[in-house]
Amino acid sequence: MKKVHSNSFTLLGLNNTIAVLKSDKFQIHIIDILENGRADKNIELQSLIKNKKYNLMNKKQFNQKHSGGRSQGVAIYFSGEIIKKDLPVLTNKKNACLLVLDQIEDTQNLGQIIRTAECAGIDGIIIPKHNSAPINNTSLQVSQGAFASINIYEVTNLRNVFQEYKNNGFWVVGVENSINAKPWFETEYKGKVLIVLGSEGRGIRKKVLESCDFTATIPMRGETNSLNVSATASAILFERIRQIEGE
Amino acid sequence: MKKVHSNSFTLLGLNNTIAVLKSDKFQIHIIDILENGRADKNIELQSLIKNKKYNLMNKKQFNQKHSGGRSQGVAIYFSGEIIKKDLPVLTNKKNACLLVLDQIEDTQNLGQIIRTAECAGIDGIIIPKHNSAPINNTSLQVSQGAFASINIYEVTNLRNVFQEYKNNGFWVVGVENSINAKPWFETEYKGKVLIVLGSEGRGIRKKVLESCDFTATIPMRGETNSLNVSATASAILFERIRQIEGE
Repeated sequence: MKKVHSNSFTLLGLNNTIAVLKSDKFQIHIIDILENGRADKNIELQSLIKNKKYNLMNKKQFNQKHSGGRSQGVAIYFSGEIIKKDLPVLTNKKNACLLVLDQIEDTQNLGQIIRTAECAGIDGIIIPKHNSAPINNTSLQVSQGAFASINIYEVTNLRNVFQEYKNNGFWVVGVENSINAKPWFETEYKGKVLIVLGSEGRGIRKKVLESCDFTATIPMRGETNSLNVSATASAILFERIRQIEGE
Repeated sequence: MKKVHSNSFTLLGLNNTIAVLKSDKFQIHIIDILENGRADKNIELQSLIKNKKYNLMNKKQFNQKHSGGRSQGVAIYFSGEIIKKDLPVLTNKKNACLLVLDQIEDTQNLGQIIRTAECAGIDGIIIPKHNSAPINNTSLQVSQGAFASINIYEVTNLRNVFQEYKNNGFWVVGVENSINAKPWFETEYKGKVLIVLGSEGRGIRKKVLESCDFTATIPMRGETNSLNVSATASAILFERIRQIEGE
């Protein structure tokens, strides 16, 4: 899989457009708005585009350009660096959490996980440079604007990253079926933690898994042999919040 | 939104094909297999198709017919009644759970929730007859075969259903932001429970929400104002398992 990272994007819909406009990280090129559409009547959007360049388009023009997707009557063209290279220092945070995605393949899943991780208030997402679903229009679209307020880091070697964080008081938890894995709710995510999820087909790579301090598993209750990775992310990240806030 | 329920389906991939073949609920029409593809080499699939009608196709033939999707070299054509009309009697079960989807709009979300619900071992999913995403090739495809082993019920009036289950010892929990809602992990899902999730845009309808005994909420920790409904399903259904098994 060849990863193509561009830094120019086109996204549809109110959540994405508002998130981009509210952020100071992006350069806005143009906004297409459907006249009398949902976005055209949205007060928050209207106040955000006051000094911006936008096209007010009739239905025919707008649909020719933005057919198919659920546009809610708005599309935004922008550029910016979504991916950061410098990992965060979180040594002084009491509860700190980074989610590591070991070669997630599907852009839909990547987008959903970005959204879920942002909703769960964690400190960022780490993806390996090679063989991961790309940050592109699809994954960003699915994230519903969450990409604008969560940090996404790209690294070349996960094991080196684990070691660096371990040296700074982090535990590394791999979520994977294995003989030694405890149920996910018996694993502690309080304090400083890296949570590692593997790819849809193959799970966490062997050498990456060996570098985890613990493994946690979500045992399946039915006939289906695995939970979607974005559903796994949700179950784990909100269990973390429960442990921090609920006890 | 007009719902079109057909009872004939075409699905791709190993998980879906194996789930359909293992079940006794469906009538198999034909199976297309790519010669020397992943499915053609899959031992479980090979044993399941022994007495079935299948086409072994070369790459050109197969790709012409099944391009685009992630077929893993197999497609299955089948028919059967996925949707049941008669709700289950669960009075004698100690822990029983039905998930109610109040007008979910998106077929991807419906498919993901079917998969998550089956993995979480609940007793079924209830969807209203009108204004819900349909059970079709898309939603079943996304469920990765889970539809074959979880019961899906269609009803005309959710409030009547709630009343019926309440009369049989069930609590009804609506998952929704509201002033009276408790954090999701402080709500009890042990025993007999209906868990209600609302649509992507509007949440649970007012009258349906008024018929719930409790409301639970997953507060957002970031800037994004809502979690995807399938991520919500995962967080809630696995919190239920934690409460049952982990205490």
